[in-house]
Amino acid sequence: MNKNDDYRYQMVERRVLEMIDSGVLGMGSKLPSLRILSRDLCVSISTVNQAYVGLESRGIIESRPRSGFFVRRAASRLPAPETATETTSEALPVTRSGLIRTVLDAVGNKQAVPLNVVEPTPELLPVAEMGRIMAQVLRDHPGDALVYDTIPGNARLRKQIAFRSVETGTPARPDDVLITSGCLEALYISLRATTRPGDMVLIQAPTYYCFLHLLENLGLRAVEIPSYPDCGVKPADIAAALRKFDISTCIFSPNFNNPDASTTPDEAKREIVAMLAALDIPIIEDDVSTDLHFGPKRPGTMKQFDEKGLVLLCSSFSKTIAPGYRVGWMLPGRFMDKAQEVKYTTNVCTPTPTQMAVAEYLDRGRFERHVRKLRDRVEQQMDTMLRHIEEYFPAGTRATHPEGGGVLWLELPGNTDSVELFLAARAKGVNIAPGSIFSTQDKFNNHIRLSCTGVWSEEIRQGLETVGELARRINCG
Amino acid sequence: MNKNDDYRYQMVERRVLEMIDSGVLGMGSKLPSLRILSRDLCVSISTVNQAYVGLESRGIIESRPRSGFFVRRAASRLPAPETATETTSEALPVTRSGLIRTVLDAVGNKQAVPLNVVEPTPELLPVAEMGRIMAQVLRDHPGDALVYDTIPGNARLRKQIAFRSVETGTPARPDDVLITSGCLEALYISLRATTRPGDMVLIQAPTYYCFLHLLENLGLRAVEIPSYPDCGVKPADIAAALRKFDISTCIFSPNFNNPDASTTPDEAKREIVAMLAALDIPIIEDDVSTDLHFGPKRPGTMKQFDEKGLVLLCSSFSKTIAPGYRVGWMLPGRFMDKAQEVKYTTNVCTPTPTQMAVAEYLDRGRFERHVRKLRDRVEQQMDTMLRHIEEYFPAGTRATHPEGGGVLWLELPGNTDSVELFLAARAKGVNIAPGSIFSTQDKFNNHIRLSCTGVWSEEIRQGLETVGELARRINCG
Repeated sequence: MNKNDDYRYQMVERRVLEMIDSGVLGMGSKLPSLRILSRDLCVSISTVNQAYVGLESRGIIESRPRSGFFVRRAASRLPAPETATETTSEALPVTRSGLIRTVLDAVGNKQAVPLNVVEPTPELLPVAEMGRIMAQVLRDHPGDALVYDTIPGNARLRKQIAFRSVETGTPARPDDVLITSGCLEALYISLRATTRPGDMVLIQAPTYYCFLHLLENLGLRAVEIPSYPDCGVKPADIAAALRKFDISTCIFSPNFNNPDASTTPDEAKREIVAMLAALDIPIIEDDVSTDLHFGPKRPGTMKQFDEKGLVLLCSSFSKTIAPGYRVGWMLPGRFMDKAQEVKYTTNVCTPTPTQMAVAEYLDRGRFERHVRKLRDRVEQQMDTMLRHIEEYFPAGTRATHPEGGGVLWLELPGNTDSVELFLAARAKGVNIAPGSIFSTQDKFNNHIRLSCTGVWSEEIRQGLETVGELARRINCG
Repeated sequence: MNKNDDYRYQMVERRVLEMIDSGVLGMGSKLPSLRILSRDLCVSISTVNQAYVGLESRGIIESRPRSGFFVRRAASRLPAPETATETTSEALPVTRSGLIRTVLDAVGNKQAVPLNVVEPTPELLPVAEMGRIMAQVLRDHPGDALVYDTIPGNARLRKQIAFRSVETGTPARPDDVLITSGCLEALYISLRATTRPGDMVLIQAPTYYCFLHLLENLGLRAVEIPSYPDCGVKPADIAAALRKFDISTCIFSPNFNNPDASTTPDEAKREIVAMLAALDIPIIEDDVSTDLHFGPKRPGTMKQFDEKGLVLLCSSFSKTIAPGYRVGWMLPGRFMDKAQEVKYTTNVCTPTPTQMAVAEYLDRGRFERHVRKLRDRVEQQMDTMLRHIEEYFPAGTRATHPEGGGVLWLELPGNTDSVELFLAARAKGVNIAPGSIFSTQDKFNNHIRLSCTGVWSEEIRQGLETVGELARRINCG
């Protein structure tokens, strides 16, 4: 190609990538025909064809015989991060809260580029519809909305949650459901209901940093087993840990573990539940990411294999329809009484109007359709981000290619200190989560987590470029 | 009087009482003139006059020279309950939760007559206005309402709370305020921030049973000092308890203590704060009832005398504008960091739309006018209830004559077992709170608490009659 051809080729490529990044072309969408784009951009058909073939070789689009070109899942060429943890040799008091607090101070800060919080941006939420529903609920039941609901929660909402749980393969009756102020409160209640200060809790590493913060705050000790990127937690590791430690309870995120997006196969889930049931050890199951599965099938839960009521499933609507409503729930199994007592003595009951609005939303059958769209948007955002990470980040960067959830987990080359990177990025108005807060061990000091629950924009692109540049600099320096 | 006169006399009396009970005639209202009522009821002026004089002798109305008759505060002839507690001889683990749970199962149960829950009935709340405000907030800020707010809470709400706190005599800046899911969560956070399991907490007896439940749930031990109906907690009792016990923190309800409505004088508050500050012992101050003062002046807080940041003031809007919104707050003083950590690891942050709606309500300057009306209604309900208690309950019944708050505290004659009474009343569809759940000691077994935050109705009258009848029967049996 001569210089002019090269320029035209890049123009075509840029136009296609813009359309994909902005969502004009979603995954699976057909690209404009060669003829149309050649006319629009005033370039030859063969230049467009060259550009399309180039994009195909990068895995961004694919040609289908006699149909044309289509947007495909970006097969990012970044290799996956390597498993870096082992089972801890002793139960450790958790002491990450200082750093975690620094990271958390960013929650709700609307000034910075939020690559740290896993909260769908308003554009991805049913904003107008929830507003209308809340207004209607308050019009139709003005008195009810202003007074306390029962301790276990709004009856209609519990019914809807039980119904959906049955539909997705985890049997539950309305009476099995306890409404909470978000998933974290469900986790907190689960820990209070199954442990006493000083107890040992089995967790996977890496794990969601809020769980570590919670353990620290409740004076619990952590025993960590590895979380494998390709298969989550392994029954054999759990068995070995149980032989060595006096475990009171476990916390697992078996589907799309935050941060590494690892998923424990359903067969392993069944085995783990049976193994812990034989020892009467409860499992706290974080199920909050499961609805964001990109594949056609929702992975199973540990709870569905629970025959003794020992699994406490925790989830919420914060990652799907209304983070700020703080409506979560739990299926606490045989710990229902104790869980209600903890709920009552923490804040009596969950606010009424937000529960009523979510119940109405579910009752109208809106959830499934909305969440299908949401999954596509998050998957697309992830792919776009991966493509830019490949471009901006230093050579040797590794990244997950999640099948669900809302985060990317990056391993930076060499000894890149992710806390240094976090601080440098924050100083430039970009928030990320450094890897070291996701474990009590120091195995993830060169990892970062990026949230993909935003909508692609120039701001986010610049944010990624900034972080990539800083990573290069720290890596060299 | 002959039989006919007697009938006419009672008809006048009944009409007047109906007008008072239904709120047609509020406290301080002028009664219809003798002439008008005599015409309306077709009785002689002298019969109306006789009935008015009769009502005056019962303290229900009063004549003012050359002005006529006016509704007055019912000077109930029931004597006040006697102080029955002493400081406990040892710090006791709290074990009231079984009975408390039984009582609590009634929360949110809309079938029974709710004489147990201190939650204003919707008729006393700004139902329509809050509904309109919520709808508008969601229309004006649809995206913001759906996403997380910051951990300490909505900035506008914190500003309004600080502003009001300054206005009522307790200095506070917006940064001093932490928003919580109701007052109980503020109490819970305060205890988590100032104690560890096994610690001793100084409380007054009787005290709000949820505090006892909370202590039990957190594995804390209670040291009780007497709550005197006429002067709340005494500095001398606190000093004596501090010499004997290693107290970690205190919980006091210095204004309109629930259940006995006792108020600690401001001078004693100052003395208590200074005494505990000298020992660096925190005070958790429950301020939730103070807005419901019947007198013209709002009593002071302990917080206003707090120079070292050791007082954690806890309050909410649950008793005034929106119980079901669960919007409370605390001024945690020097414990702000720890309090935020507990808040974060319990449920991240308080729901967003409810905070926004309350902030807007306050910003419109609606609160003061509404709460003035609310006070009048609650005071009137209390008086009406006292009058009927006098009529229905067994001789020897004693009752508080509160200057604020929302509850009556009754001492039943002899050994009337209030748990038996509670169970018998529940069986007949009336919910009351038995005295024994308000202390770790067995000094209040013949007390009951009745909430006065409803609106007088035939249902409530019947409920009181039922409880009175049952009390007579249990007392005799």
